[in-house]
Amino acid sequence: MVPRYARPAMTALWEPEAKYRIWFEIEAHATSKLADLGVVPQSAADALWDWWKTEPAIDVAAIDAIEAVTKHDVIAFLTWVAEQVGEEARFMHQGMTSSDVLDTTLNVQLARATDILLEDMDGLLDALKMRAEEHKYTPTIGRSHGIHAEPVTFGLKLAQAYAEFERCRARLWDARAEIATCAISGAVGTFANVDPRVEAYVAEQLGLVPEPVSTQVIPRDRHAMYFATLAVIAGSIERLAVEIRHLQRTEVLEAEEYFSPGQKGSSAMPHKRNPILTENLTGQARMIRAYALPALENVALWHERDISHSSVERFIGPDATITLDFALARLTGVVEKLLVYPERMQANMDRMGGLVHSQRVLLALTQAGVTREDAYRLVQRNAMKVWESDGRMQLLDLLKQDEEVTAALSPEQLEEKFDLDYHFKHVDTIFARVFDTDGGELDEASGAA
Amino acid sequence: MVPRYARPAMTALWEPEAKYRIWFEIEAHATSKLADLGVVPQSAADALWDWWKTEPAIDVAAIDAIEAVTKHDVIAFLTWVAEQVGEEARFMHQGMTSSDVLDTTLNVQLARATDILLEDMDGLLDALKMRAEEHKYTPTIGRSHGIHAEPVTFGLKLAQAYAEFERCRARLWDARAEIATCAISGAVGTFANVDPRVEAYVAEQLGLVPEPVSTQVIPRDRHAMYFATLAVIAGSIERLAVEIRHLQRTEVLEAEEYFSPGQKGSSAMPHKRNPILTENLTGQARMIRAYALPALENVALWHERDISHSSVERFIGPDATITLDFALARLTGVVEKLLVYPERMQANMDRMGGLVHSQRVLLALTQAGVTREDAYRLVQRNAMKVWESDGRMQLLDLLKQDEEVTAALSPEQLEEKFDLDYHFKHVDTIFARVFDTDGGELDEASGAA
Amino acid sequence: MVPRYARPAMTALWEPEAKYRIWFEIEAHATSKLADLGVVPQSAADALWDWWKTEPAIDVAAIDAIEAVTKHDVIAFLTWVAEQVGEEARFMHQGMTSSDVLDTTLNVQLARATDILLEDMDGLLDALKMRAEEHKYTPTIGRSHGIHAEPVTFGLKLAQAYAEFERCRARLWDARAEIATCAISGAVGTFANVDPRVEAYVAEQLGLVPEPVSTQVIPRDRHAMYFATLAVIAGSIERLAVEIRHLQRTEVLEAEEYFSPGQKGSSAMPHKRNPILTENLTGQARMIRAYALPALENVALWHERDISHSSVERFIGPDATITLDFALARLTGVVEKLLVYPERMQANMDRMGGLVHSQRVLLALTQAGVTREDAYRLVQRNAMKVWESDGRMQLLDLLKQDEEVTAALSPEQLEEKFDLDYHFKHVDTIFARVFDTDGGELDEASGAA
Amino acid sequence: MVPRYARPAMTALWEPEAKYRIWFEIEAHATSKLADLGVVPQSAADALWDWWKTEPAIDVAAIDAIEAVTKHDVIAFLTWVAEQVGEEARFMHQGMTSSDVLDTTLNVQLARATDILLEDMDGLLDALKMRAEEHKYTPTIGRSHGIHAEPVTFGLKLAQAYAEFERCRARLWDARAEIATCAISGAVGTFANVDPRVEAYVAEQLGLVPEPVSTQVIPRDRHAMYFATLAVIAGSIERLAVEIRHLQRTEVLEAEEYFSPGQKGSSAMPHKRNPILTENLTGQARMIRAYALPALENVALWHERDISHSSVERFIGPDATITLDFALARLTGVVEKLLVYPERMQANMDRMGGLVHSQRVLLALTQAGVTREDAYRLVQRNAMKVWESDGRMQLLDLLKQDEEVTAALSPEQLEEKFDLDYHFKHVDTIFARVFDTDGGELDEASGAA
Repeated sequence: MVPRYARPAMTALWEPEAKYRIWFEIEAHATSKLADLGVVPQSAADALWDWWKTEPAIDVAAIDAIEAVTKHDVIAFLTWVAEQVGEEARFMHQGMTSSDVLDTTLNVQLARATDILLEDMDGLLDALKMRAEEHKYTPTIGRSHGIHAEPVTFGLKLAQAYAEFERCRARLWDARAEIATCAISGAVGTFANVDPRVEAYVAEQLGLVPEPVSTQVIPRDRHAMYFATLAVIAGSIERLAVEIRHLQRTEVLEAEEYFSPGQKGSSAMPHKRNPILTENLTGQARMIRAYALPALENVALWHERDISHSSVERFIGPDATITLDFALARLTGVVEKLLVYPERMQANMDRMGGLVHSQRVLLALTQAGVTREDAYRLVQRNAMKVWESDGRMQLLDLLKQDEEVTAALSPEQLEEKFDLDYHFKHVDTIFARVFDTDGGELDEASGAA
Repeated sequence: MVPRYARPAMTALWEPEAKYRIWFEIEAHATSKLADLGVVPQSAADALWDWWKTEPAIDVAAIDAIEAVTKHDVIAFLTWVAEQVGEEARFMHQGMTSSDVLDTTLNVQLARATDILLEDMDGLLDALKMRAEEHKYTPTIGRSHGIHAEPVTFGLKLAQAYAEFERCRARLWDARAEIATCAISGAVGTFANVDPRVEAYVAEQLGLVPEPVSTQVIPRDRHAMYFATLAVIAGSIERLAVEIRHLQRTEVLEAEEYFSPGQKGSSAMPHKRNPILTENLTGQARMIRAYALPALENVALWHERDISHSSVERFIGPDATITLDFALARLTGVVEKLLVYPERMQANMDRMGGLVHSQRVLLALTQAGVTREDAYRLVQRNAMKVWESDGRMQLLDLLKQDEEVTAALSPEQLEEKFDLDYHFKHVDTIFARVFDTDGGELDEASGAA
Repeated sequence: MVPRYARPAMTALWEPEAKYRIWFEIEAHATSKLADLGVVPQSAADALWDWWKTEPAIDVAAIDAIEAVTKHDVIAFLTWVAEQVGEEARFMHQGMTSSDVLDTTLNVQLARATDILLEDMDGLLDALKMRAEEHKYTPTIGRSHGIHAEPVTFGLKLAQAYAEFERCRARLWDARAEIATCAISGAVGTFANVDPRVEAYVAEQLGLVPEPVSTQVIPRDRHAMYFATLAVIAGSIERLAVEIRHLQRTEVLEAEEYFSPGQKGSSAMPHKRNPILTENLTGQARMIRAYALPALENVALWHERDISHSSVERFIGPDATITLDFALARLTGVVEKLLVYPERMQANMDRMGGLVHSQRVLLALTQAGVTREDAYRLVQRNAMKVWESDGRMQLLDLLKQDEEVTAALSPEQLEEKFDLDYHFKHVDTIFARVFDTDGGELDEASGAA
Repeated sequence: MVPRYARPAMTALWEPEAKYRIWFEIEAHATSKLADLGVVPQSAADALWDWWKTEPAIDVAAIDAIEAVTKHDVIAFLTWVAEQVGEEARFMHQGMTSSDVLDTTLNVQLARATDILLEDMDGLLDALKMRAEEHKYTPTIGRSHGIHAEPVTFGLKLAQAYAEFERCRARLWDARAEIATCAISGAVGTFANVDPRVEAYVAEQLGLVPEPVSTQVIPRDRHAMYFATLAVIAGSIERLAVEIRHLQRTEVLEAEEYFSPGQKGSSAMPHKRNPILTENLTGQARMIRAYALPALENVALWHERDISHSSVERFIGPDATITLDFALARLTGVVEKLLVYPERMQANMDRMGGLVHSQRVLLALTQAGVTREDAYRLVQRNAMKVWESDGRMQLLDLLKQDEEVTAALSPEQLEEKFDLDYHFKHVDTIFARVFDTDGGELDEASGAA
């Protein structure tokens, strides 16, 4: 976790205090159910909850001090709670194993972290939708291989991003379902010393579902899937960030990150306005992707469990979620405040001397009876002249002067092929597909909603 | 792709001929719809399908020869088809771009590959269920950290694997839905020169859904999610493979890969029977995981597309699916034929002098009024003697001789704590959770079925 | 391995026949030394080498057929050789274990593969040097964040790439040294049944050094380092590929991949000239990076060895070296034939209205006694006007009209700050550092040469 | 960075204050040289150093507050220094660009971090050597595939680890040389506004070498190589950790992590002594490996630089070095205090009924004139009986009763083949190779020393 790439709400989730609060809730709910089942006295559960109602501070340092002796975190915590609550606390943790607490806690943290990420995602989707509608018909050149291809609208670019992040949102829901499970099943998952009804009760209280079969731990394929999903989302963040970085290049300059008064782009070059937010996002995406790897290696624990996953999760649990939360929020801000330059988009498109219309001419020639091979040759020989003139020649002019072309198409027919609106006749269709689904895409992809 | 880790049905899917057949189908279906819409003559579509009905061989070498000149694969293919079909073929590919064909084809291949993987997964689940039922009550020691913990049954181990692969099956369904899309949207995804109804028709014919918004390509977050999912499945394969490798170690030897007559374990040591199939699976799992990485990097294409993803997909499309197909089939064989040694399981459990029952004694002491701290101390001091005797002392004997213990628990009470069946009272509950769900887990996790 | 990304010499190295030839050489050299030591009859070694002198074909299919029964590759090979050579062959492999042969063979293959890669690298360095000299003083704009910064020369860009690949070349030498080791140490590396002098002799014959301590295998940290090094080189390939892709974008167009007659950029858009070679290289770089991962996971084999590394190496041994060989050769071709457009470089630089000289003005103001803060403010307020004029205003003109500026600097002083050559006065120094080292950098970094 | 996996000296290196101190040193040394060259007044340099001699505290919060306005870290720092030093400070940073400071600082931090890692490595090597000498002739079974193979000594296992970490040490030296470079070359690396002699001077003062050609930044292939090297070292850590985890498993128990008084292995099972330190190391190794990935992706920056690498390095700079420092120190402690059980090693070896000697019998039969195929069959049929008896039968007994065997070898000859010392005759040779090199291996591999 890098403080400058962290936001408070998400960070708080991973503080020791937050963790201990969840530990207590699990232990206390379990004790409640054990009392209900007659395994421990009701007074034990009451003592725990009575103390909890006093809204006690969690003395992290005191717990750490006990752990320094016992070298076992859960025992340290139980010892500290017993010091606070007294005699009755000895019934806590009856028949449970540390992992019952630790694994369920991690899943509560991940589920709550995902709730924040889902909110972030909603914010990003809102921003993308707003800007997409705003630029629904703003013409700009579509590019493949970095080369001008045919016209699109800037709104279409954002609609594409919207659809991609809507898929990401659905994946996030699925990922949440993967890890929102609870295990209170004892030392090797047999419920030998703890009734399965305790697990069911705790799960319900915490908004989780019981893990069908745990070993000592909740199986780590779930967490691998979770972090792999965050990695995919990071890829989508990088995609949009890279798009904006491209648009802001000096020669393109069709859009820019918002540049606030007082901001200095360079200590040496006062004129610079750099896309540093999106460059930063690119780097953050690399990190979030990297965190998926150790999660994938964590799956193959030995027998009923080994603890190699634990040190990994101390890193990636906070680091992946905190960084993704920050990245989503930052990307939302970039999109919301993005400076968009339609005139420059038009100017760039015009620089190519009409080459972007070459395919339409090709099709028209074919439809006029020219063989595909000949049509290609005719268009290409004129297109190449325009290309080599660096935009000073106009394709339409050259075509009108090419007798083989004019033998097939009249000047009027040629001119009609250079109409920009022709390309935008289905923008509305696409927008309807993307934005008028009321979450239909979500349902289709996952059903998790 | 390594031939020895490849099976024919999956490999065939990725042969050039299979690819060209899908190309043809896409082009011909598109032409049919274009004819239907009046854009091209019906005779063009008829000519294509008439030729196709002759079940023509695909001359891969001839197409390659054309590509060597044009340096463009789709143009080479179209040229070759035109040579076969004649004049009418010039209406093919009207308004489409190469990526319409290439991207849709890749998705058809991945969807079909996934169908094979789903069958593989069903076979593995069947094998796991069969062996789990067989060993539902075969006692074996549960281990955490590689250290004996408490008893489980061998059936429970397999039930855990079953539940894990059932999750993998659900994820595979989701992954299939991610990539089973079709785009026929033209050079930059605007449908400028091709009606969206062509896309809808081709999608329907091929069992795909139309991509809501494509650029020039189908967005690569879909493929990233697909290959990330295969990586997670690889982790689960590795987990079961590692379990079997552990069980086959000389000192453990609770199970063994089937050893066929004539097989030699070592050129130097004739006595060796090595878990080489599961060791191989471990390596294959590493490969399948690795293939997810470039897929994740493929997401951030430039603008409406760059072609950097393409060389990656030429590798990982076949390599990841072929290797996973092989690995699932191999693992199924290993599970089906696994030699299981219940006597050895019992013997290993007995070696610990009853230490596996220590927790029950701890709980009984607590319930008899001893403080948790004292109970832990009493059990540990006797347990440590057993541990250090290397299994020659029995915990029960020592406890009966410990006056602080017997002050709280009678010999009969102590003996009752050493009953093995106590641990298996919920095996049936767990089996019901895992096996009696009729795919309930599937629905719960994804809804993709 | 993807055939279209493979070259014959490297591919041949990984064919079964090449492997079997190395196997034979190892076994036969070992038998020679064993005969020399009196362990086996001299006639055994003679029989092997006599047969070898007949230049026998290796019948891969026959060996495969034997392996199908024995399920052990080395035994299958020894059996086949014995069938060819007769009775005397039974002394082969005396005291050795399969891994002695397999591991040493892999290292011979990797060392030979590296020799090819080093030649490739030399070719690339030659091309870079040639083009760097050619464009030593071709002015072009330097860019940070994609934004125009200050002038550089195109030769400097290539010199940077040269220095980077020279480092890669040194790393490749180091990587070769990592894996050019030989182990003939028996089943667990103790030389129990084979004299260490056999290992020394075989190593010498094959140009390797003896592995100081092997287990059953040569330790895999060596291979991890090897493949990690290839991954770093892939990163450098990607860097140059991405640079060229950027230079070829429509709006930049300062350089282009060579476009051969007959080549078609797009089936739909005849005007397109796409940087597909460098886009392909980008994808190949992703693959080569990915192959490092399983190599890193291969290090932690169990005890004296497990065989999980083997299936991984069947993939990455050929795939990583073949793909890197192809990528280096392709990149060399791209550099050699790169179309460079100095006029366009100048035109792009001029578009910014002289903003690239802003830092010099800033410094001059400071040196003339203006505080740094004030100087920054003065330059920035004029720079921003130029920026917002989209290059229509000239910074020099505006500065001359700014009274606060002219209070510190005269028009002549200002003009002098807009001199392009000022930026190139140390080009020669840098070129000398990069190109006049006679491999000094190599020695400094590694000493491996 | 996870506090519990961090040690103070390494952590301090990455604190903001440490960073700012290096920034100051770079700026002040540069100013000294600029004064020397007559570019700035000597009084400017004097003012800086005079202030520095007062050992001023660095007010991190004040600098942060300035950065919140300027959004540029180096400008914020320069502004704060100017506030402290006064008027003369305006000559600082003359002709330099932020990256001159930032990149050189990162390399200073990495070089100093590597110095700590090299010390750690020395400590680990010492511990390994000490324990290897101690157990040079402690017999233990060598295992391949987890199956008993032939005898080795425990000292040999540790010698193997020693040789591996000695290689890691050499790699670390190489990695340090990769990143110990300095760039003071201005906005695009042309030295347009700063004399190369400034770079040379600052480099010398800081113990670095000048970067031959920088762009705006020091090229990131260097850092990729650095972090890739740490990843390889992590693999070696994992290997030794996994070995110890295996040795501590209940059924093996040939060695154990030291178990301190008061330590509790499990909250539920008082008898447990778990290898948690080495399990933790396994997880930490996964993290250190993961950090190499984004470093590899950082190489391909755009043009003269983009800043995407920066956010990555804020994570992995500290996280990879701090975690590796901790892991090396922890592993050293584990090795130093490892509890080793020679009796158990002997007992485990004896369990196999002499099967570990099977290869020697095989060889003896071959040398006595039996064909290899027959010899294999004879040994295997007896070995299989022993194997299936679960160690109750002895191979020597069975061989003595096998008439086909005794036709070739007498009982005395057979007995001689079961001598353990036979296997250890070259232990001294191997130890000499590993330990008597006086760093020779280091020189051979890299020359970096």
